[in-house]
Amino acid sequence: MDKFDLQGIAAATFTPMKPNGDINTSIVGEYVTYLVENQGVTSIFLNGTSGEGMSLSTAERKKLLEAWLCAGRNRLKYIIVNISCSSITDCKELAKHAEQVGASAVAITSPSYFCPATPDALVDFLHAVSLEAGSLPIIYYHIPVMSHIPFLASTILEAIGNKIPNFAGFKFSDLNLFDASLCMHNSGRRCPLYYGVDEQMLTGMLMGAQAAIGSTYNYLGSKNIEMLSLLQNEKFQDALNIQISIQKHIASISKTGITVPENKVIMSYISGLDMGPPRSPLTACGASRTSQLHRAVDSLQSLSRI
Amino acid sequence: MDKFDLQGIAAATFTPMKPNGDINTSIVGEYVTYLVENQGVTSIFLNGTSGEGMSLSTAERKKLLEAWLCAGRNRLKYIIVNISCSSITDCKELAKHAEQVGASAVAITSPSYFCPATPDALVDFLHAVSLEAGSLPIIYYHIPVMSHIPFLASTILEAIGNKIPNFAGFKFSDLNLFDASLCMHNSGRRCPLYYGVDEQMLTGMLMGAQAAIGSTYNYLGSKNIEMLSLLQNEKFQDALNIQISIQKHIASISKTGITVPENKVIMSYISGLDMGPPRSPLTACGASRTSQLHRAVDSLQSLSRI
Amino acid sequence: MDKFDLQGIAAATFTPMKPNGDINTSIVGEYVTYLVENQGVTSIFLNGTSGEGMSLSTAERKKLLEAWLCAGRNRLKYIIVNISCSSITDCKELAKHAEQVGASAVAITSPSYFCPATPDALVDFLHAVSLEAGSLPIIYYHIPVMSHIPFLASTILEAIGNKIPNFAGFKFSDLNLFDASLCMHNSGRRCPLYYGVDEQMLTGMLMGAQAAIGSTYNYLGSKNIEMLSLLQNEKFQDALNIQISIQKHIASISKTGITVPENKVIMSYISGLDMGPPRSPLTACGASRTSQLHRAVDSLQSLSRI
Amino acid sequence: MDKFDLQGIAAATFTPMKPNGDINTSIVGEYVTYLVENQGVTSIFLNGTSGEGMSLSTAERKKLLEAWLCAGRNRLKYIIVNISCSSITDCKELAKHAEQVGASAVAITSPSYFCPATPDALVDFLHAVSLEAGSLPIIYYHIPVMSHIPFLASTILEAIGNKIPNFAGFKFSDLNLFDASLCMHNSGRRCPLYYGVDEQMLTGMLMGAQAAIGSTYNYLGSKNIEMLSLLQNEKFQDALNIQISIQKHIASISKTGITVPENKVIMSYISGLDMGPPRSPLTACGASRTSQLHRAVDSLQSLSRI
Repeated sequence: MDKFDLQGIAAATFTPMKPNGDINTSIVGEYVTYLVENQGVTSIFLNGTSGEGMSLSTAERKKLLEAWLCAGRNRLKYIIVNISCSSITDCKELAKHAEQVGASAVAITSPSYFCPATPDALVDFLHAVSLEAGSLPIIYYHIPVMSHIPFLASTILEAIGNKIPNFAGFKFSDLNLFDASLCMHNSGRRCPLYYGVDEQMLTGMLMGAQAAIGSTYNYLGSKNIEMLSLLQNEKFQDALNIQISIQKHIASISKTGITVPENKVIMSYISGLDMGPPRSPLTACGASRTSQLHRAVDSLQSLSRI
Repeated sequence: MDKFDLQGIAAATFTPMKPNGDINTSIVGEYVTYLVENQGVTSIFLNGTSGEGMSLSTAERKKLLEAWLCAGRNRLKYIIVNISCSSITDCKELAKHAEQVGASAVAITSPSYFCPATPDALVDFLHAVSLEAGSLPIIYYHIPVMSHIPFLASTILEAIGNKIPNFAGFKFSDLNLFDASLCMHNSGRRCPLYYGVDEQMLTGMLMGAQAAIGSTYNYLGSKNIEMLSLLQNEKFQDALNIQISIQKHIASISKTGITVPENKVIMSYISGLDMGPPRSPLTACGASRTSQLHRAVDSLQSLSRI
Repeated sequence: MDKFDLQGIAAATFTPMKPNGDINTSIVGEYVTYLVENQGVTSIFLNGTSGEGMSLSTAERKKLLEAWLCAGRNRLKYIIVNISCSSITDCKELAKHAEQVGASAVAITSPSYFCPATPDALVDFLHAVSLEAGSLPIIYYHIPVMSHIPFLASTILEAIGNKIPNFAGFKFSDLNLFDASLCMHNSGRRCPLYYGVDEQMLTGMLMGAQAAIGSTYNYLGSKNIEMLSLLQNEKFQDALNIQISIQKHIASISKTGITVPENKVIMSYISGLDMGPPRSPLTACGASRTSQLHRAVDSLQSLSRI
Repeated sequence: MDKFDLQGIAAATFTPMKPNGDINTSIVGEYVTYLVENQGVTSIFLNGTSGEGMSLSTAERKKLLEAWLCAGRNRLKYIIVNISCSSITDCKELAKHAEQVGASAVAITSPSYFCPATPDALVDFLHAVSLEAGSLPIIYYHIPVMSHIPFLASTILEAIGNKIPNFAGFKFSDLNLFDASLCMHNSGRRCPLYYGVDEQMLTGMLMGAQAAIGSTYNYLGSKNIEMLSLLQNEKFQDALNIQISIQKHIASISKTGITVPENKVIMSYISGLDMGPPRSPLTACGASRTSQLHRAVDSLQSLSRI
């Protein structure tokens, strides 16, 4: 793979599961084909929140990474793998594995049960894990709504300083764009930012993010790529119109963000690939909600004709 | 005054106070002059959070409104007055007064001690107050970080529907730009939005807000007006450069937003008008913090030479 | 009235209102009679959360205090009045009035819109208000779930130190009994504590609170007095049985605490005195919830036969 | 071991670690001896929050359980093991292991990254794990401050109903004693409760908890056993005096609860057994805080002479 320089759109992939709840790597090849050919998406964020990484065992996470690397060879540009675990021991094991099998980069978020008491404590954690990842780029995955970390990203960036040699930026899944901007523009060392709030992606890119990583890009990738292309060509109003269309469709599903179980239903319906149920403690959508989502998707398809 | 159609920048004014804590209306005339002549700001938001409205008695709030109306005659375009109180009885009294003395519009936020249990409960509150404001435009002041309201603005907008005849939009002081966009673009009736997070103002305007209301425009008004002008002329990159410069300077003061006591120190230092101390339970900055702020301001002055 | 030494049970009274939302002082006399004769409750906490104090104007709050003082003469032992307001100016006015008309003590909580930045800032607020209350005992009303104050009561007590000469203890409406105990037992100056979580009152009293103040004592006063009497006579198991019975009945209404609108329905039904609707932003219970509450009360009446 | 019927006090053990951060099972035998002989504590809660269970790999957790079972044979009465993991796959593996090697009971808390959306979703998770634990008693570990679960324990208990055959109660680490009481006294099926807030243990026991599980019982076990014994002999005032003494000493360390790093310092100092450092993201106490803790412990020792 190329030197890591993620631009544009990356899909935070779902983890396909069998009806019995086991992971289903058999459709990963078709999944890659769908992303590349139907959505034009060539980079992925694996085992993240959308991929239910925290609900998988380390063995499953390794197996998934290997399956995607195999299926993505010569087809995917970057495979970033989230190696966050509650236990630093597991994190380190996944870091080492990611490096050995050839992932493009690793992402690490803060533990959510034992929340670091200070930014420095978080940096110590990140640093210790990074040492196991060899030369792989290290991305801090900032997602306070899930990890409950109480520190600003810009404060964490200050604490990182030069302590993590392969530090390669933040996946920034938060609404605070002042904070995001400070990460990008107010530090001695430039920090690449991959924006992670799909619903307001345009604003993150406008402030300077160099890529967007999110779950909706699995099935709305091409539309978002079109939006970014318009933006690059300085057709801001056209880009905004697409962003607003996407927002309206997302809002028809949920104003507070689409959950993983909902996203798996939507992806299965749009792509024709069976994502299967989510894993406990997430619960599958019932029949009624599934029908609602299908109808919302039918409406969403019209986006291609905007 | 003109028919209410706020565009551009409005300053959320501070309430000048005497050393003994009494309000000091004697400098309101000079304050108007400073805003208009030094900053180019011709609309204000009175008795809001920056104005410590909730810390003032109804008598003081009336007196302040009258002083600003008097001093602003033929000089200020719009005077929006925040009439939010814990007690709906007091709110109604202030609404009636605002209409009688000729304010441009009233703003109402949710009570923060008794938080409405549902969006409808909030709308009932807003509606009952609005009936006392005659023909004045009614702005809902959405500031969950202070009022602790747990509902999305777009959900509140749905609940408002057509129930408040003079409804004139939201002062939107929140980071959620998906929610902001839904208010502006996803409702049958268009809802004007006045963006209230100074630190990321550009993003709010890009999503379609028609004005920005905030405390930093008291002393950074001209710079923000310049930014908006560049934006209107489709010089996005130049506008962004100004936004980033402003963010750096704000961050040198605080990454979590400048507090009212800090803002009063800064405004006093920049304008030469003595804003005086804040009122309890806010506490005046100590000597050391005041010196820090002065030094930050000295550096901020260089903004004019960007 | 006697020197202030509240023991046992005090009712946090509701504010009777007319159908049009005006306060209804005409039934205060009967209310006193009901509390004294039917419930054996002879002390009250006026204009608190249950009394919707924050939703009333200062004029209404004064009028209510005067009505209760008049009706309570020679019948009520202590009338504590909550004078908390958003504005310290209003607080001071109510403090002065309370002293002039002869309340037994005043209670003050933290402002909830502008939350004090430090315990010292809160103490400055309390102190400034206390200076207007003459010789009246000053009670700090600790109710973080409403006021959003982020400090422990024991930390606030330390900050109070000897700064408030007439400091007379805490109305402690929080679950943290470690914190409560530290207030009572770990400070140089003993701090009387009036416990305010009805649902677990027994535990607060066991830890050393000298009285309990709450809304359910309006209609469950006698049962709670019986429980305290058993406790004083060291019949702990019998007291516990009553506490559990009360808890079961409260839980049949709500596991998260009975709201003011619900409480007004219950009180009206039990006492036969019309409490009227709550004031906006609180909303009256609908017909269905009212029926549910009546049925719950019918069941609750059986408590008297336990 | 006996049929599971935990009474009295159980220690939530720490996980001894080597300076390099590896677990140190070599001192488990001495740890058992210390608990039994010096503190009179004969039941333990292994790999819980105090044991940093969530920071350990499944292999380490198994190894620790085996070491404690081996060292505790004929000396410890009950060994409850916390098998909570982010991944249900790992949870199931630990459940199966616990049953195979002969733990007394397993405890499971809610995942903290993916929070169950409903009580039923949590119960599905608990149930699926319980199926792997054979005949072992299943304890739900309710600790919202860490797991961020937003549901009341009594609501979770209702959702459990009869769905988990070996359900054996709640480790209840929360302040809400109304909720605790409802779990014990308001359900068809009696739910044993093991109280988990050391700082206010007496109140939990008074409400009916049948045991207390906590970290401070590692080094204050005998004092707490003495308190419970006084309580059983109806010497409430003497028990309260001990509770207050303990509270004062805890408060001299921290008013918000003693953290795991602090607890490991204290336990090492009191017991003479080297608990070692905590694991990242927790950070070891610095020299200054360590000295403070030692001094606090010196003072705490005087408890034995109360």
